[in-house]
This record gives sequence, structure tokens and C-alpha cells, in this order.
Amino acid sequence: MFNFCFQNPTKIIFGKEQIATLTNNIPKNSKVLLLYGAGSIKRNGVYQQVSQALSDFSWLEFSGIEPNPSFETLMQAADLVRREKIDFLLAVGGGSVIDGAKFIAAAAVFEGDAWQILAEGAKVTSAIPLGCVLTLPATGSESNGNSVVTRYETQQKLGFSSPLVYPQFAILDPSVTFSLPTKQVANGVVDAFVHVIEQYLTYPVNAAVQDRFAEGLLQTLIEQGPLALTEPENYDVRANIMWAATMALNGLIGQGVPQDWATHMIGHELTACYGLDHAQTLAIILPALLQQQREQKRAKLLQYGRRVWQLSYSNEEQVIDEAIALTKAFFQQMGVATQLSDYKLGAAAIAAVEAKLVQHNMLKLGEHGDITPQIAKQILQQAL
Amino acid sequence: MFNFCFQNPTKIIFGKEQIATLTNNIPKNSKVLLLYGAGSIKRNGVYQQVSQALSDFSWLEFSGIEPNPSFETLMQAADLVRREKIDFLLAVGGGSVIDGAKFIAAAAVFEGDAWQILAEGAKVTSAIPLGCVLTLPATGSESNGNSVVTRYETQQKLGFSSPLVYPQFAILDPSVTFSLPTKQVANGVVDAFVHVIEQYLTYPVNAAVQDRFAEGLLQTLIEQGPLALTEPENYDVRANIMWAATMALNGLIGQGVPQDWATHMIGHELTACYGLDHAQTLAIILPALLQQQREQKRAKLLQYGRRVWQLSYSNEEQVIDEAIALTKAFFQQMGVATQLSDYKLGAAAIAAVEAKLVQHNMLKLGEHGDITPQIAKQILQQAL
Repeated sequence: MFNFCFQNPTKIIFGKEQIATLTNNIPKNSKVLLLYGAGSIKRNGVYQQVSQALSDFSWLEFSGIEPNPSFETLMQAADLVRREKIDFLLAVGGGSVIDGAKFIAAAAVFEGDAWQILAEGAKVTSAIPLGCVLTLPATGSESNGNSVVTRYETQQKLGFSSPLVYPQFAILDPSVTFSLPTKQVANGVVDAFVHVIEQYLTYPVNAAVQDRFAEGLLQTLIEQGPLALTEPENYDVRANIMWAATMALNGLIGQGVPQDWATHMIGHELTACYGLDHAQTLAIILPALLQQQREQKRAKLLQYGRRVWQLSYSNEEQVIDEAIALTKAFFQQMGVATQLSDYKLGAAAIAAVEAKLVQHNMLKLGEHGDITPQIAKQILQQAL
Repeated sequence: MFNFCFQNPTKIIFGKEQIATLTNNIPKNSKVLLLYGAGSIKRNGVYQQVSQALSDFSWLEFSGIEPNPSFETLMQAADLVRREKIDFLLAVGGGSVIDGAKFIAAAAVFEGDAWQILAEGAKVTSAIPLGCVLTLPATGSESNGNSVVTRYETQQKLGFSSPLVYPQFAILDPSVTFSLPTKQVANGVVDAFVHVIEQYLTYPVNAAVQDRFAEGLLQTLIEQGPLALTEPENYDVRANIMWAATMALNGLIGQGVPQDWATHMIGHELTACYGLDHAQTLAIILPALLQQQREQKRAKLLQYGRRVWQLSYSNEEQVIDEAIALTKAFFQQMGVATQLSDYKLGAAAIAAVEAKLVQHNMLKLGEHGDITPQIAKQILQQAL
């Protein structure tokens, strides 16, 4: 096991009818800015619950934070924060709204051009405190210090991390996810699944607890994900998926182990080039990447096949083949197609992704740094 | 799944040669009181590493905190804290030293008689900040807000909990555990194992992640515990046990699920009456309690047998019998005896334990509140 340092200060408030606890979790006398997206929270009752819980506070709202939140929009919100002397941000939505709130929190008090936080990794030394109400389980943003922002004018998608932008609290009420479109639920399950895989399916370092926890999350998503599609109002199913998605990327399972993230990096370029959903890109790339990296990942692929998929073949190749095939079948079962051709992309589409990886200096991806843009091209060719 | 609220602010600093990071983790210009036990840290090099890391600070030390820390000793330390205007406590040791430090932290600034914190549940409204260097993996005290203190003059063992006494940081260097006596390593593994069981082996509430995490910790302890005895200087084995013991009682796996704790409560009385080690009492009581509660715990016993012990019998009784037998065999393999007779206690010893449970108002233990002192007596009879 590698050395590690882990701290996650976010207070998780999980369960039915917990949105009302906002009142006690935002510091008294705060001036609050409510941040949200396109307005689905006005249709599913969440907006009403939130505004009721905010009735003791002075508050304003800012809506229209995009999926893949834009720098331009977020800077408008940051201006509003400064102008109105806001001292608490409340993000209500999925990963995009929460990621956006984190950037607003840092940008509003940043001295100088806030773009430097993203483009140059300028250190965040203070931030407006924030909390969140999660409506879409997927990214884990509700209890980590990471944020990804897109600058549309230059087509750059960049991230930053800071311990100062962890949400102070995250309210997770699984019942608010009942009304999500099926596609978003499915994408969320695939996203969380691949978050776990990126931190697990590398090479063994004898980190027994981390491996068992990762396997437990994968098994949970495999078991509960399809039930969310067939029993959309089953509270426990939604609760299990929501908690699994948070645990998948709150930092815990990635401590002391090697991490991969090549599937995500290649996927980001595929989204940038052709507008596929993030989870769709993961479902395409991961099975092909596992195949391409089967030697480097052999020991962990065997462990994954045996423990997660309960495969008992004595033939190792058969375990690995079947583990990859079952992974692909799971994504398909969730309704997320796994081939480029399913999205009407052919061999001609691959060169642009390879070029983007070169342009963004993504030259040595993966836990061994051996996934070059050339290898990424081969992976995509296997996913045609 | 039940609703829950979870927050754990402790910063975990895990790995080789991490004690030196003390220097950066204690607030600058703090006046530090180093707290430790009987002095084993002077023989295994930990004291030297700690004092070197403290060289930039003004610091004092207070030693002699007992296993089962005593109120009387801790109050002396609290006096010293006040007298010397200490503003940071550094606990170096196992669960007893850390539990003791938590009480000192609260008692030193408590207005009135600090005994009220334990005896009457007086609310802790402030505490001296503390950090710790863990030398014995077992109790989880390094990252929770719980403390148990014994008042020897009245033979009372009482606890308190407060979010204000979570260690701000916990340094976990597995290599400092190489020099532990075998008995302490074995006791620690059994203690951590039973902590998990108390939060897992109750009745199902469809908490998929919590169940999988608990099962993962149990499997880790079953696999790594015996290796710690046969390969005492295997770093990864020690690291896996240390991390499992922390995760067993940092609050995470117990969120949103019923909890038992009857084994612990009965065990405390057995320790009070006959001086057995805490882990010895758990190893005696747990298998007998599972047998006695096999109907109430049926669904979870089957899950435990199938998932943790990989039992595939179709006959349910056989799965349960074997799961209990394997649990007992695991404790024995760790060198912790599981029958009262192994400790030279016979049927005549049981009445005193039953009487203590009555005296301490432990009338309805377990997740269903159905373990009365009379049932506890039956459990102990089965463990003769």
C-alpha cells in the first residue's frame, strides 16, 4: 500500500425529507445565493422544499448553470456574489451545478483573473463557503474538492481542486431522484461504476480494504443499477445507488493505490469532438481499454472477474474475456451503448480525438503512463 | 436504509515515516502536552520520532495513562493543561491513551465537575484540540468522537461522545506496530472484527454499500489477521489491519443500519468482574450470542455465511452453524480463547455478570432490545 493523506470534511445528510435541515446547516444570518441549472428543480418539488427551508434567510437565486458548466456563466454568478455580498452558496442540482458552485466560490474572492485558477493552477487561498442538495447521483462532486469548468469560446475543459471548496454539507434525499429521466439515471450509474474502476483496476499493491470497498461498490452498482430502471420508485434502490455514487468519488477508495483515469481523459476528448454524454464515452472506451491493457492489468482483471463477477474458470484468459464481456453487457443493460457505431461514428472520427489528446498534452495516460495518443487510437479502433 | 447524518473531520496521515509530519499538523506556536501510557513508546523509537517532530514547539509530557484510562489520572492531566495553559494535546498510543486525551480535552475547559460529562451526560461545549499518533490498531478511537473512562474508586466504566473531541489528525504508521506483543495484535484484530459485526450482523435494511463494506472489512481481518502472527514484520499486512481497524469504527459502516452492541455491553461486565481483556470477552460472547439470536439474526447470518465465509450449502441451518463455527475458529486461530473455561471461569461466575447488567440498567440489549440480563446469562452458559 502506498502512503496517503485523507480528509473529507463534508457532512452528509442522507435520507427522506432531509432538505428541510438546510435551515440548521447554513450559518445563521448568512446571505445565501441559490444556484441551479435549467429549472427541473421547479418541476419536481425540490425548489419549493429549498425555498421553504430558506425562509429564515435573506437569499437570491442564479439559474441556468449548464451541464458542463461554462466559465462565462459562472463568472456572471461570481460577479453577483461580490455585488450582493453573498456569504453562502447553495448548489441544488447534479455534478455540474455543484462543480459550478465550487468555481464561483473560489472566483468570487480571487484577486486577479479567475481564469488563472483553471488555466494556470493558481492557488485558491480562500472561498465562499458552500453547501449542496444533490439531485442526480453520478459525479461524487457533493463530497469532494474537485470542479471541472468549460470555457466555450476557446473549447477548453479544465479542472481545479482545493480543500477550500468541499461542500460543508451535502443533502442526499434519494426520493428526489425518482423523477429523473431514465437516461440520466443510467448515465449516473455508468459514471459512478467507471469512477470506481479507475481507482481499482490497475495493478495490485496489497491494499486489501481499498480493493474490497471498490469491489463492494461495483457489486452494488451491478445489482442495483438495473433495478433503478425496472423499479423507478424503489426508494432503497435509489438510496443504494446514491450512496454508492458518493462513495465512488469522495476520495476514500483511491487512497494508497495507483489510479488510471485514461478512460476519462480519452472520453473527455470524445465529448469535446462529438458531443456524446460523458457516460456514453466511458461505456465505449472502458471495455476496449481493458482489452488493450489486459497484460498490464492482468492481476487486477483476474481479481475483478473472480470477486466482482464470481467467475470460477481455471483458465485465466477465459476469466478476463468474460469479465470484460460482462462489463460491456452491464453498460448495455443500463441502456448505454458501447460501440462508436452505435453513435454513428466510424473510423474517420478517431483521428480528431487523437489530435485533441496531443493538443492537450495527454501523452502518457494510465497508471503506467503507457497510453499514448497512438494507443488511445488503437483503443478507439477496437470500439468501432 | 435508515436516514443518517455522517461527518468525520479527522485527517488521516497513513504510511511509513509519517510521524515527522506532526510538525506541520500541529498549529504553529501551540503549547503541546504529549500524552502516553506506560512507556512502550520509549522502547520502540516512537517517543524519539515524536520528540524530534516537536522540536519547534514548546511542549510538556504526561505519562502513565492506563489501559482503561482512569478518571483520577486523567483529571491530573486536565489540571496540568489548565495550569500550564496547554493549547494542543498529542496522544501517542492505543485506544486508551486516545480515549484519555479526549476526556482531558473536554475536562480541562469544563465549567464545574468534569465527572458530570461521564456520569450525567453533561454537554461538552468546548475542548482543547487534539491529534494522535496511533501505535495499536484496534479501537478506532483515532478517528471518532468517542471515549470510555473508568473511575476506579467506584468501579464505573462510562463513556461520552462529542464532535469536539475528534482528533484533528491521526498519524498511522503501520511499521510502529511491528514491535507490539502478539497478544495485543491478536486482541486488536478480534476487537476490530467484533466492531464490524456489531454494526452488520443484525437484520437487513437493504443497505447495500454498508453491507458490502462491512463484509470487506471482515474478509480483510480474516485474511490478514493470521498473517500478522506468522509474518510479524510484513508491512502490508500491518497496514491492512491498521486501516481496517480504523474503518471499522470511524462511523462509516454503521450509517443507516441497525446496530447491536450487546456483545460489547456484556463483555464490559465480564471485564469488570474478572479482569479479562476486552477482546477476550468478545471472543467468548459473540459466538454464543449469535447462536442464541440465530432466529432474530437469521437473514444476516445467512448473508454473512455466504458472502464472508463463501459457504454454498443449500441447507440454511448448515450455513449458520458453519458460519458461527468458523467465527469461533478464527478467534482461536488468532490465539484468543473462546470459552469461559479457558479463563478458568465456571458456571458460578455468571451470576455476578448478570447482576452487574441489572445494576447498570442494561435490561434491553441488542438491535431488538430483547437481550435481557436473563438472556445474557443463557448466552454465557452456552459459552462455558
